[in-house]
Amino acid sequence: MTRRRLLDEHEIDELVEAHPRWRREGDRLVAVFDFADFTAAFAWMTAVALISERLDHHPDWSNSWNHVEVRLSTHSAGGVTDLDRAWVDAVEALELTPRT
Amino acid sequence: MTRRRLLDEHEIDELVEAHPRWRREGDRLVAVFDFADFTAAFAWMTAVALISERLDHHPDWSNSWNHVEVRLSTHSAGGVTDLDRAWVDAVEALELTPRT
Amino acid sequence: MTRRRLLDEHEIDELVEAHPRWRREGDRLVAVFDFADFTAAFAWMTAVALISERLDHHPDWSNSWNHVEVRLSTHSAGGVTDLDRAWVDAVEALELTPRT
Amino acid sequence: MTRRRLLDEHEIDELVEAHPRWRREGDRLVAVFDFADFTAAFAWMTAVALISERLDHHPDWSNSWNHVEVRLSTHSAGGVTDLDRAWVDAVEALELTPRT
Repeated sequence: MTRRRLLDEHEIDELVEAHPRWRREGDRLVAVFDFADFTAAFAWMTAVALISERLDHHPDWSNSWNHVEVRLSTHSAGGVTDLDRAWVDAVEALELTPRT
Repeated sequence: MTRRRLLDEHEIDELVEAHPRWRREGDRLVAVFDFADFTAAFAWMTAVALISERLDHHPDWSNSWNHVEVRLSTHSAGGVTDLDRAWVDAVEALELTPRT
Repeated sequence: MTRRRLLDEHEIDELVEAHPRWRREGDRLVAVFDFADFTAAFAWMTAVALISERLDHHPDWSNSWNHVEVRLSTHSAGGVTDLDRAWVDAVEALELTPRT
Repeated sequence: MTRRRLLDEHEIDELVEAHPRWRREGDRLVAVFDFADFTAAFAWMTAVALISERLDHHPDWSNSWNHVEVRLSTHSAGGVTDLDRAWVDAVEALELTPRT
């Protein structure tokens, strides 16, 4: 397991500015996502699950029909790290619709 | 199991015009979808799986990384039916990105 | 939307006896599932998502790596109904491993 | 991208003996999986998708209701490599049911 580096205040501010859906809450990041319906929500969750497995970093999250809440931190580091930032960057860059 | 009605030539022409990704091939409909990467392709497949279970109608399909090929017909009816049309309409109406 | 019938005390007791993972908590059913890892947990969640879409009935649920918590009720009926029972029966009957 | 090592004949024989569902077909491995129904098949595919993303190695595969066919090779190496073996080992070790 790679040792992860905690982000400093400035880096967390930058992250939250770059991705307005996210905010800091104590020692973690939280965000809420609303979709057209359950199908869209769960398809997105599947994409996020794939990213999580690729990065070997998994959120605490909950779902209620079209609504998803995500809480993210690096437990082993006790806060928000560069790994959480990489995870948010990847999730916010998702392009799920067919290109052709 | 509801008896499904075969579409006539005119109805199939309309379907293919409404959804240009699709074409007729013998007694079935076929389409090809290309995505940004495997993650996007499989997330979309998950949405399509949910639609398929809701309609109790499932495609023959194959995937290779970002590429998905779909073949659709109603085996019990021996061709393309109103159920295939409902399936294509639902799949083509997917909105997978977060609304808020 | 079909009108759902609330289960009486006796029926809820029977449900909970038949499926020991589940218990009543106020006006809903709750259960906790632990898996080998995230992959197993999310694959199971996908099966449950498909059942939910088929029954047009969706849980409130949360996931943290290999752990899944499920809360189930029929909001429109204000409690646990025959639809929740059908959902639990279907989820508890899942057979996810290949047969051949 | 790590350079992958082609397996020799002896290693492929060992792999196929360890996992009887699999056989060699030309320069790739193939296997067929049958499940209880579409839900079980697609939940398993989701687990396999997560493994594939973790290993950054993806199959060519097709699905028809409860039936899944998988074709696996390392295109860049022109045959079956140690990466394919790691993929098959991981897929065959899947435990999808809840432990508790």
